[in-house]
Amino acid sequence: MEFITGVKQKETVGIKQIAEGGMVGKTVKVNGAVHTIRDMGEVAFIILRKSEGLMQCVYEEGKTEFDLKELKEEAAVEVEGVVALEERAPQGFELRLTKIRVLSEPAEVLPLAISKWKLNTSLETKLSLRPVSLRNVRERAKFKIQEGIVRGFRDYLFTQGFTEVRTPKITAKGAEGGANIFKLDYFGKKAVLAQSPQFYKQMMVGVYDRVIEVGPVFRAEKHNTTRHLNEYTGLDFEMGYIDSFEDIMAMETGFLQYTMALLEKEYEKELKLLDITLPKVNEIPQVRFDKAKELVSEKYNRKIRNPYDLEPEEEILIGRYFKEEFDSDFVFVTHYPSKKRPFYAMDDPADSRFTLSFDLLFKGMEITTGGQRIHDYQMLLDKIAARGMETEGMEPYLMIFKYGMPPHGGLGIGLERLTMRLLDEQNVRETALFPRDLNRLEP
Amino acid sequence: MEFITGVKQKETVGIKQIAEGGMVGKTVKVNGAVHTIRDMGEVAFIILRKSEGLMQCVYEEGKTEFDLKELKEEAAVEVEGVVALEERAPQGFELRLTKIRVLSEPAEVLPLAISKWKLNTSLETKLSLRPVSLRNVRERAKFKIQEGIVRGFRDYLFTQGFTEVRTPKITAKGAEGGANIFKLDYFGKKAVLAQSPQFYKQMMVGVYDRVIEVGPVFRAEKHNTTRHLNEYTGLDFEMGYIDSFEDIMAMETGFLQYTMALLEKEYEKELKLLDITLPKVNEIPQVRFDKAKELVSEKYNRKIRNPYDLEPEEEILIGRYFKEEFDSDFVFVTHYPSKKRPFYAMDDPADSRFTLSFDLLFKGMEITTGGQRIHDYQMLLDKIAARGMETEGMEPYLMIFKYGMPPHGGLGIGLERLTMRLLDEQNVRETALFPRDLNRLEP
Repeated sequence: MEFITGVKQKETVGIKQIAEGGMVGKTVKVNGAVHTIRDMGEVAFIILRKSEGLMQCVYEEGKTEFDLKELKEEAAVEVEGVVALEERAPQGFELRLTKIRVLSEPAEVLPLAISKWKLNTSLETKLSLRPVSLRNVRERAKFKIQEGIVRGFRDYLFTQGFTEVRTPKITAKGAEGGANIFKLDYFGKKAVLAQSPQFYKQMMVGVYDRVIEVGPVFRAEKHNTTRHLNEYTGLDFEMGYIDSFEDIMAMETGFLQYTMALLEKEYEKELKLLDITLPKVNEIPQVRFDKAKELVSEKYNRKIRNPYDLEPEEEILIGRYFKEEFDSDFVFVTHYPSKKRPFYAMDDPADSRFTLSFDLLFKGMEITTGGQRIHDYQMLLDKIAARGMETEGMEPYLMIFKYGMPPHGGLGIGLERLTMRLLDEQNVRETALFPRDLNRLEP
Repeated sequence: MEFITGVKQKETVGIKQIAEGGMVGKTVKVNGAVHTIRDMGEVAFIILRKSEGLMQCVYEEGKTEFDLKELKEEAAVEVEGVVALEERAPQGFELRLTKIRVLSEPAEVLPLAISKWKLNTSLETKLSLRPVSLRNVRERAKFKIQEGIVRGFRDYLFTQGFTEVRTPKITAKGAEGGANIFKLDYFGKKAVLAQSPQFYKQMMVGVYDRVIEVGPVFRAEKHNTTRHLNEYTGLDFEMGYIDSFEDIMAMETGFLQYTMALLEKEYEKELKLLDITLPKVNEIPQVRFDKAKELVSEKYNRKIRNPYDLEPEEEILIGRYFKEEFDSDFVFVTHYPSKKRPFYAMDDPADSRFTLSFDLLFKGMEITTGGQRIHDYQMLLDKIAARGMETEGMEPYLMIFKYGMPPHGGLGIGLERLTMRLLDEQNVRETALFPRDLNRLEP
């Protein structure tokens, strides 16, 4: 009988292993995709693309056992060569090739030059060709950084005693209500796609006190904007035993501090590639919703049209205000009007027109909505009744309050928006691998 | 202006802080849910339920400033008391209460005794009351272990150079085809819920070489069994530059080894609570599909009815065989018949009736399907044609092969099934927080 005992050491080496030194003059095997071939006559530079980065290889006629004419860009190869120091090469070394073995060949030439530093094409084309346009090193660096944000979220909240959960995406009733719900037939029953894990994460606070979920969120929004997606990734947490809704903002600030440090340490290469300066997050100003509107109105000489809502232009100006006055890219806007928040939001006992809630703006765009939730059964029933809503279908949710819930609150962060702002992208589609919008269901 | 600077030290302490010592005789504040109240007259034992475990508190009339009659089970409280050693208490200490502050009260008494060691109720009732039945310490321990499995998956594969991605769940076409697809209307277009991230994770191999995804998977299976869910969590990975499909099995074995070690170290409390012995994973036998059928047929005197399929009973017997003969809970069954595998599976060049693929059986149940994929464009087109399939709608997927893909393969693990087998549960619904089946869409 044969047994599998785990991962074996491979013959091939990675960029990191070579860059760590001690390999100069040695013959190594490396695999990768042929990113570009620059034929100079007797010598050619072959750039290999690996997950870790680009690697310069030198082909020399007579020294490399291979006919260069047989090599295609985007072929997958395994090459053998001698490591040599070369300060002009991307990693400070190059590989003087002795052998090339083609593992797999493309059938056609790429429809866009992904080896260009910046993809010189429209967003539409880039998205339509996403399966290959992502091979561009700058494109893929964005999503590597996005990975880092998710790692930061999970890793930090683990240190804070949170438990990770996975809650259903096919549900019987939407959490937020409203029209932006995708509907489907579930074996003859009416079902919807989860607009948020809101009800479930609250249920789980009764179980683990503090929970996180990272998962898809579905919104059937009918508007096409640069900041909306119909499917996005929610970074959600919910925590029990809070003293006030400031605990939630403090936890988010902790997450941002941890994550920026993680990115700086482990995603340095990608940040450099994209020329990103990380924002300061040592302290984040907080301002009341009504106060924020006033400040902006005064400073930028703008009329307050609707005291109960923030227009996108106002968000941008609030962002500008706090950048100018406090050099902060972030600002917590607190105490949103009750009318603009879902029924489960805790009203401010000092003034029930407002709630103990907040948005976090990052460079003038909302990337988080959070707040304290109602934990008292009767208070929740009263608010549902006052809004003229039905409790029908909400029994599993209401159950947790009926049988006891601690004071709690939480938030949801839009991962793609946070990434978009961090990378100074102008369209949220740039920071979703395969974005879904009103017109785009593919790839 | 006020600023949020991060998480402040709380006044309350956790079980771990107290258990670490140095607090005996000191007065501490602790919060939690009132799990049980055992009133002995002048003294009462109040068990607090915290995320970390149960904590014994002693109420004494005259010494504790509170009227015990006012205290309800499932109330959220903050208590103050003096730490005292007490070896009969769950954590080796107890809290002699001086104060009790009620943070929140339930409106009604729980519909089932969640403080019982084992919930004495049917699975149906348990599931219907899931938002509160999960508060049972054994129930919640299961999902804590499930968290550990997911952590193990991600953490191990990060060490192996994988990148985590998030791919869309609303898509234009199903990956596996077939009838088990949930359909929905997407702004007037026909859309489906992803049956697997298969196509997308293959696309991402061209970008990052090695990728993982942990996310929901939707299957509109019309059968109600103890091992099927209509929404489950897929632990998926896909890796490029493989030398053979054994690389994939080796990687999975590495994941299992890492994860069992992680569970042993960081989830010891939960394993003990559920009385779980972790399986040995130092080596996992591999056997060909046809050979496995033969072995089982001979040993258990069973006729081979269909040489091209494994019946669930056969899976159980294969599991039994490898337990008896090799003391292994796991077995890789390799070289599944081509007819039973999707079009993208790589046929065995030595015998194209079979594929370079495998299932991993755990205690006689399939928990993983994986294998090498076709990476050559023409080979893929030929196989699609040979199966009488259409390429229409598959262009974004086919694009990656047209423009070059390395040899690659991967797998998908059913998280709930893996958890089910690890915990020796008899129904996969036991290991999904909020299971979805033919009849169950709530809670």
